Amino acid sequence: MGQEFLKITDPEEVEKIISKLPIKKTVEKVPLEAAYKRVLAEDVYATINLPPFRRAAMDGYAVISKDTFDASEDDPVALKLKDVVLAGEIPENKVEEGTCIEVSTGAPIPEGADAVIMIEFTEKKGTDILMLESVPLGANIAREGSDVKKGGFLLREGELITPDKIGVLSAIGLLEVPVYVKPRVVVISTGNEVIKVGEKLEYGKVYDINSYTISNAVKSCGCIPIHSDIVNDDYNSLKNKINEFTDADVIITSGGTSAGAGDILKVVLDEMGEVLVHGIAVKPGKPTLIGVIQDEEGNKINKIIFGLPGYPVAALMIFYNFVAPFLRKFASLNESPEGKSREFKLSRRYVPSRGRRQYVLVKIEGDEVHPILKDSGAITALAEADGYFIAPKNVEILEEGTYVDVFPLKTY
Amino acid sequence: MGQEFLKITDPEEVEKIISKLPIKKTVEKVPLEAAYKRVLAEDVYATINLPPFRRAAMDGYAVISKDTFDASEDDPVALKLKDVVLAGEIPENKVEEGTCIEVSTGAPIPEGADAVIMIEFTEKKGTDILMLESVPLGANIAREGSDVKKGGFLLREGELITPDKIGVLSAIGLLEVPVYVKPRVVVISTGNEVIKVGEKLEYGKVYDINSYTISNAVKSCGCIPIHSDIVNDDYNSLKNKINEFTDADVIITSGGTSAGAGDILKVVLDEMGEVLVHGIAVKPGKPTLIGVIQDEEGNKINKIIFGLPGYPVAALMIFYNFVAPFLRKFASLNESPEGKSREFKLSRRYVPSRGRRQYVLVKIEGDEVHPILKDSGAITALAEADGYFIAPKNVEILEEGTYVDVFPLKTY
Repeated sequence: MGQEFLKITDPEEVEKIISKLPIKKTVEKVPLEAAYKRVLAEDVYATINLPPFRRAAMDGYAVISKDTFDASEDDPVALKLKDVVLAGEIPENKVEEGTCIEVSTGAPIPEGADAVIMIEFTEKKGTDILMLESVPLGANIAREGSDVKKGGFLLREGELITPDKIGVLSAIGLLEVPVYVKPRVVVISTGNEVIKVGEKLEYGKVYDINSYTISNAVKSCGCIPIHSDIVNDDYNSLKNKINEFTDADVIITSGGTSAGAGDILKVVLDEMGEVLVHGIAVKPGKPTLIGVIQDEEGNKINKIIFGLPGYPVAALMIFYNFVAPFLRKFASLNESPEGKSREFKLSRRYVPSRGRRQYVLVKIEGDEVHPILKDSGAITALAEADGYFIAPKNVEILEEGTYVDVFPLKTY
Repeated sequence: MGQEFLKITDPEEVEKIISKLPIKKTVEKVPLEAAYKRVLAEDVYATINLPPFRRAAMDGYAVISKDTFDASEDDPVALKLKDVVLAGEIPENKVEEGTCIEVSTGAPIPEGADAVIMIEFTEKKGTDILMLESVPLGANIAREGSDVKKGGFLLREGELITPDKIGVLSAIGLLEVPVYVKPRVVVISTGNEVIKVGEKLEYGKVYDINSYTISNAVKSCGCIPIHSDIVNDDYNSLKNKINEFTDADVIITSGGTSAGAGDILKVVLDEMGEVLVHGIAVKPGKPTLIGVIQDEEGNKINKIIFGLPGYPVAALMIFYNFVAPFLRKFASLNESPEGKSREFKLSRRYVPSRGRRQYVLVKIEGDEVHPILKDSGAITALAEADGYFIAPKNVEILEEGTYVDVFPLKTY
């Protein structure tokens, strides 16, 4: 069976190794409609003045401000109404001494006017408009470029494109947005016992779980999952499958790391590249493998490979704690607040395993969490879990009522 | 111009009115591949036993446990190796007294065996396997249905389908997942001055912003945005456009609420249904309109209409604070941790407007936030903002260093 002893690496060391893995940043242009939740690949500057023209900030009357300087409620000043300009219209008349032009919010300010008096401070009287107070020069007028001038800085490279930032891009009429290309991540389930969902479940077989969980978790990291067929636990099947995905950035396998495919993956990597990690001092997820594949000349890293354990809980915990931070960095997603943990009280005493950092699934109830005490092959553990906490390796006992930092599964 | 006084409603009252708006829940089945981030519409029970058969939980040897009872490292018991069963294979031989069968993790347990001894506690010697310790009955065997029995409860209706829950669904081979239909939300920008991104910017025109910001914000609420053409500020255009979207659940308009389309929307709603809110005591976003449209018999609510202000910051703040919670409820998304606020210190004294609840955009720097002091038409305010806080209406001054709850824009 070729059982090998793993060279167990501490998780801190594994994180260091992962942080040094090379990432590739390439840029593409996407239509504004498709820019949501992408990451800006270039600084964005205003291509036009904003506002693009001198416009009314309020509904009212465009006036020459000094015409209103003596106006008061007791002694209003009458100005002749010459015209009406609504938003979207082009003024055809000028405001001259003793006259005014009605404007709606967003309408261009007619020539000659230097202020807008709000409609609330006026009164209609025949063809005249009575000014009930004075307005200072420039009042209620948004000057061309007063928000930002053409060429002015707007958004920084690396910015996550949320609805508010899409507003900025549309304000300057940007049809195509430069964003970072999403990394392509192949997800391969291995195992002779694993069959596709939808097939008839024969004796000795189980449905593929990991390629579904991991593919979707890959999406939550801003990457594109590429689904693979299930691969048998043998050298040639795995090697051929890995070679099939020439344009993938990352390959994630899962399954069989305890005896079959894990060792095969190691053999494949020894031949095609290099094994960097073979076993991590965590629970669950110890039999994890991390490696790189070189190109034909054997001197440059071409693909990064993560070999996850087969048990679904173990695969997901290794993914969230080691693979996801790497993929998020690859996708230029800065650590976002969604990923942050929240404190909860342990509802009962918990005794972690010795000598390994431990990921403990929990059910959240109110401000308490109940540890889920099931093995990492238990599907019901996934069904019940709302999150997980990390028990450090040197902690012997976590007493009831201890506060633990819980990472909610809902945020993935 | 038909300026009307708005009947300003307090935000608490508006929230109450919105909470009573009817929502419709319909169910559809989607393929497992498309279930990510959808909401389960039915409880899910196990359709098979999990594990589906009695299997090895470890790599080792299937044995009759009492054969090993006298075994120790000093005085091992030798069992004859009869066969090897790997995961995915069907055992062809039985384990009989004095014999064992090698099994890999996930392999079916051969008949006769009642325990698996881990490979680490054995030694090979010719065709015999030496047992270096005893194993108790049932050791390292996962019984059929020991995780969950066929018919057992797995997932509750209303559950957000994250990667871990997809793992549960795939474990039972569920090809089609019952989920709630996503509400269909039409987003209409109004205004004669508003033109589509991509068109040439003539004098007096501005690019459409709100239909881009709001459409994408609608996605973040688990709804499907339906993009509409830009509608002119006149009664017939707006009425016809609203009538066009017969199968929409919600219609969101924006723009012109101060003079043009806002009043027109009110007239349209007075005719087609009912205006529930016309003005909210908040800043920005006062000129907001909420109403319902009745069906032809005029007695049932058919569509819900939100008329947002035209200024982008105002439209977005009203959307996030009043429309989004409603849409999330409509989409059966429970308030998720992403939406939660975090505390930051004010970097400077801030004096809110009197008499209205206020939404203040802020830039986050370290553990401090800087209020962005720009009007709600400023695009640069959207460019700079990382989040916003809510200043209650009766607060006069927020001193420098005051802690405020900031809602990050990144979570939308």
